[in-house]
Amino acid sequence: MKWIVRVNTKTGKIAKEKASAEELQWGGRRLISKFLLREVPPTCDPLGRYNKLIIAPGLLGDSAITTTGKFSVGGKSPLTRGVKESDVGGEAGRKIADLGIKALVLEELPDAPVTSVLKVTLDKIELIEMAELKGKLVSETIKLLRETFGKEAGLLCVGPAGEMKLGGAGIAVSGPQDVQVRYAGRGGLGAVMGSKGVKAIVVDATGAPSPAVFDKALLREAGKALVQGIMADPKTENRHVYGTPAVLTLCNEIGILPTRNFSAGRFEKAAEICGDRVAELIGQRGGDGRSGTPCVRGCVIACSNIFPDPTGKRIVASLQYENIALLGSNCGIGDIDAIAELNNLCNEVGVDAIETGAAIGVAMEAGVVSFGDAEGAKDLIRQIGRGTWLGRILGNGVVVTGKVLGVRRVPAIKGQAIPAYDPRSLKGNGVTYVTSPMGADHTAGNMLETAKTINPLGIEKQVEGSRKLQIRGAILDTMGLCLFTRPPFTKNPDLFLPLLKGRYGWDLAYADVQRMGIDTLETEREFNRRSGAGEEFNDMPEFMREEPLPPMNSVYDLPLSEMQRVWDVKIPEDVF
Amino acid sequence: MKWIVRVNTKTGKIAKEKASAEELQWGGRRLISKFLLREVPPTCDPLGRYNKLIIAPGLLGDSAITTTGKFSVGGKSPLTRGVKESDVGGEAGRKIADLGIKALVLEELPDAPVTSVLKVTLDKIELIEMAELKGKLVSETIKLLRETFGKEAGLLCVGPAGEMKLGGAGIAVSGPQDVQVRYAGRGGLGAVMGSKGVKAIVVDATGAPSPAVFDKALLREAGKALVQGIMADPKTENRHVYGTPAVLTLCNEIGILPTRNFSAGRFEKAAEICGDRVAELIGQRGGDGRSGTPCVRGCVIACSNIFPDPTGKRIVASLQYENIALLGSNCGIGDIDAIAELNNLCNEVGVDAIETGAAIGVAMEAGVVSFGDAEGAKDLIRQIGRGTWLGRILGNGVVVTGKVLGVRRVPAIKGQAIPAYDPRSLKGNGVTYVTSPMGADHTAGNMLETAKTINPLGIEKQVEGSRKLQIRGAILDTMGLCLFTRPPFTKNPDLFLPLLKGRYGWDLAYADVQRMGIDTLETEREFNRRSGAGEEFNDMPEFMREEPLPPMNSVYDLPLSEMQRVWDVKIPEDVF
Repeated sequence: MKWIVRVNTKTGKIAKEKASAEELQWGGRRLISKFLLREVPPTCDPLGRYNKLIIAPGLLGDSAITTTGKFSVGGKSPLTRGVKESDVGGEAGRKIADLGIKALVLEELPDAPVTSVLKVTLDKIELIEMAELKGKLVSETIKLLRETFGKEAGLLCVGPAGEMKLGGAGIAVSGPQDVQVRYAGRGGLGAVMGSKGVKAIVVDATGAPSPAVFDKALLREAGKALVQGIMADPKTENRHVYGTPAVLTLCNEIGILPTRNFSAGRFEKAAEICGDRVAELIGQRGGDGRSGTPCVRGCVIACSNIFPDPTGKRIVASLQYENIALLGSNCGIGDIDAIAELNNLCNEVGVDAIETGAAIGVAMEAGVVSFGDAEGAKDLIRQIGRGTWLGRILGNGVVVTGKVLGVRRVPAIKGQAIPAYDPRSLKGNGVTYVTSPMGADHTAGNMLETAKTINPLGIEKQVEGSRKLQIRGAILDTMGLCLFTRPPFTKNPDLFLPLLKGRYGWDLAYADVQRMGIDTLETEREFNRRSGAGEEFNDMPEFMREEPLPPMNSVYDLPLSEMQRVWDVKIPEDVF
Repeated sequence: MKWIVRVNTKTGKIAKEKASAEELQWGGRRLISKFLLREVPPTCDPLGRYNKLIIAPGLLGDSAITTTGKFSVGGKSPLTRGVKESDVGGEAGRKIADLGIKALVLEELPDAPVTSVLKVTLDKIELIEMAELKGKLVSETIKLLRETFGKEAGLLCVGPAGEMKLGGAGIAVSGPQDVQVRYAGRGGLGAVMGSKGVKAIVVDATGAPSPAVFDKALLREAGKALVQGIMADPKTENRHVYGTPAVLTLCNEIGILPTRNFSAGRFEKAAEICGDRVAELIGQRGGDGRSGTPCVRGCVIACSNIFPDPTGKRIVASLQYENIALLGSNCGIGDIDAIAELNNLCNEVGVDAIETGAAIGVAMEAGVVSFGDAEGAKDLIRQIGRGTWLGRILGNGVVVTGKVLGVRRVPAIKGQAIPAYDPRSLKGNGVTYVTSPMGADHTAGNMLETAKTINPLGIEKQVEGSRKLQIRGAILDTMGLCLFTRPPFTKNPDLFLPLLKGRYGWDLAYADVQRMGIDTLETEREFNRRSGAGEEFNDMPEFMREEPLPPMNSVYDLPLSEMQRVWDVKIPEDVF
């Protein structure tokens, strides 16, 4: 990957330049942090001409290494007003990488409203006006794009929410055979894409040459070792069969499952929406239903699923833990079919299901519809797609919803909804939500995995734990590796070395790899420091420091100063 | 004034404590800055339990000195998220001061929604539940309060907007004989009051003893000199006859009159809405109509008015320049009767007319209603009062409106609407809007008065000019003096000395008085530095740096770094 492609959405001019020697060392999340700090004024309007939408495969994005089809999308977030990187599966990332594109950067703003498609092929990159896509749902958009551009292309697109520049909008990426829709959901990057007038990006890598790999055999061997390590880990089989919903039961047990707008951490209908139940229903119903499907080609974990209705017809793919929790228990909804439909509606209108579930929870607290009212919740998401006033409020996310509806209990940090691990009873996640440059984002450092070794209700080791996981996440997001590839790196962090040596010929020590992660975080932090999105202005919501969370009856009690110690703790030589 | 009264809106407990020696030296805006920095966590939720609503007469608030019935209301702003002081006329301030109350502080939050009235008398201060006031318009509220509490009381209240905690909500203060409604409008302090469950504050000073004045004769003499100085200034007569609308013609001429969502600085119908026209119509129509009415008893300037309809019936009192501009030209509305009705509707639902006019301008740009559609605009304000979804959006001010409606041209700085002097062609006001701790607030340092001596289109002397006026404003707001009392102080700044010596016996030099103003600004700035509301994160809106403003075709071109020099410029020995 050697090309930096810049698309000026004002002039239509497209520039394809060779990456500099320094840029060649960047990838995925790290590249995004570097580009943002270098090129985007930190206090700029996130939906204005100075923000950029940056799409970047990870360093291993053009390799056959498992899970590396995942790629990063980033920009200044309209929600957090700080740096945002969201990584996502689907088909497009590998194709961008196959075309040798290290970064695809959307710049500027069109002078008048347009509905553009950016077509990226080996020979040509062009912006095409396709007015017929205006306002189309995501599935309709994908269908129309297939009719025009064929089956081979990888697709990114926004739904009506992104076109309306709603802060909760995400970017959809078509999964294998268009069965799944994957989302770069967090932080409102769909609104940034919408602001550029780009409805979709179509990537066709037909004819792309194989990348010049430094040492194919070494890379292949390292890739094999990675796969073996993943398959040898007991969590992998569990993830394959039950997917991310597997953690719901644990979250319910330890009392961190968001329930009725974060007023409880345990849900009386958890058994009806947990991973076991999802897998059981998929098995019973058959038809389109599948457990253990991959979100990117070549993933050996394959933690996704296709969730069918009682007749076997697909409702949504994939149904994940976060979405079940935020659209389900957090809204008092215990009907898994209804939750799947709500999730599908979010995917169709093009909003982040976490942000939207949180916003609906707040709307329910305000009495707009009742907790547990699944039909009411569906209507609210449809309203987002139609752009009614209420829909636009909700589509802008939980903070705007709380403000407009006059609700004080707003589960958000840095303007972004808190994901499905209530930090009052998993305190390390609070450290991550407050101090991570990503804000309230579990993928930035989820301490659920340490809940058995570090007391989730205590204040001990939360800061050290979060720091470690934040660095780990930044490394994997830079490589283009899924967070679920951790196990073999935990056993042998030096496994990164043959991967990078094999692909690039780089002679690195593990410490160099770790420095990439630390540098990514420091770069992001600097951007946030300049944009005002630092933790010094963005503490835990007050209600979480005041209201004990049943059943553990715990409040959030790490002071900000303690959390800020995250930047000063001694970093272990090996964070894996 | 020696009492600090604290009202705990959670427990209902009311504490009346003697002010400390240090507190006795504070008043009005300075007191608010000191209390906020000392007591309110800068990053707290402005509508949460840690914010406080502080009501404080100026240092001269219990004297007979002209205009000192004006008083300060403050707290952390839900719009700017920084310090906010809004000063206001009406009857209540003098009564609070007469009761010896230096500061009335609303603290905490009620556990359940309430509609309380805080009754303040010489013998007793109590919170009374008056459910019958819930949701009532401001005029209805005043009427009901009069029925219960009689004619003597000074009244503060919020309309439905404040009860709904909408960010654009202001605090209404009854004027003499309830003819006028005065507003502590800017910064959303009505939402703060509403968050405390306090619908109204009723202040009855019956039986209050005269304050212990240090030297009555000296104070009286100084007061006379002040009045003579005011009356000798040619601007005073103009203000008396034409009021603040007098400046509209000048603003239109120099091209800074907000027109159609700040897309032009000159309005083709300016002659129909200018000060001359307002005074002419008041004269022609008779009936309730009056020019030259005071907003506080004893004001010799009396720049307010009662604007009648063609039959002579009062539409609104008072009709001011800012409101004419934001609700009028900024919405493309050139019908002064319609503007007066829009202004009255704002007063009734309880929103700042500046914030609301700006929000409607943005809604018009989004096509919600057309520019110039007065009936459409009225409906929008009524919707705020009814709390429809669209009404709640608009009632939250221009930034939320822009975000929800997807408009990029949002005339706001630090979350607050820009008042009626487009900074592109009056650059010093841009310095004030960006650097003043108050954000986009013309009363913090309005360079219109220097437009003839400092080229408003140039970058020379804008920073120095703004710094000077910012200090001047902070001094007058601390004294409780109206900004329009400037002229005699300009001639003789030592006039402050006999006022303060006469009232308090303080032996000060003018430099000490100036230090009060500087200290106020520094205190406010420190609060904002800690809250994230500093100018480093809150530059001019991008469109004002890009779009030339007709007819001067000027863009805003002072870089942020130049504006930030405001804190380092050499302060003249005398800012008056």
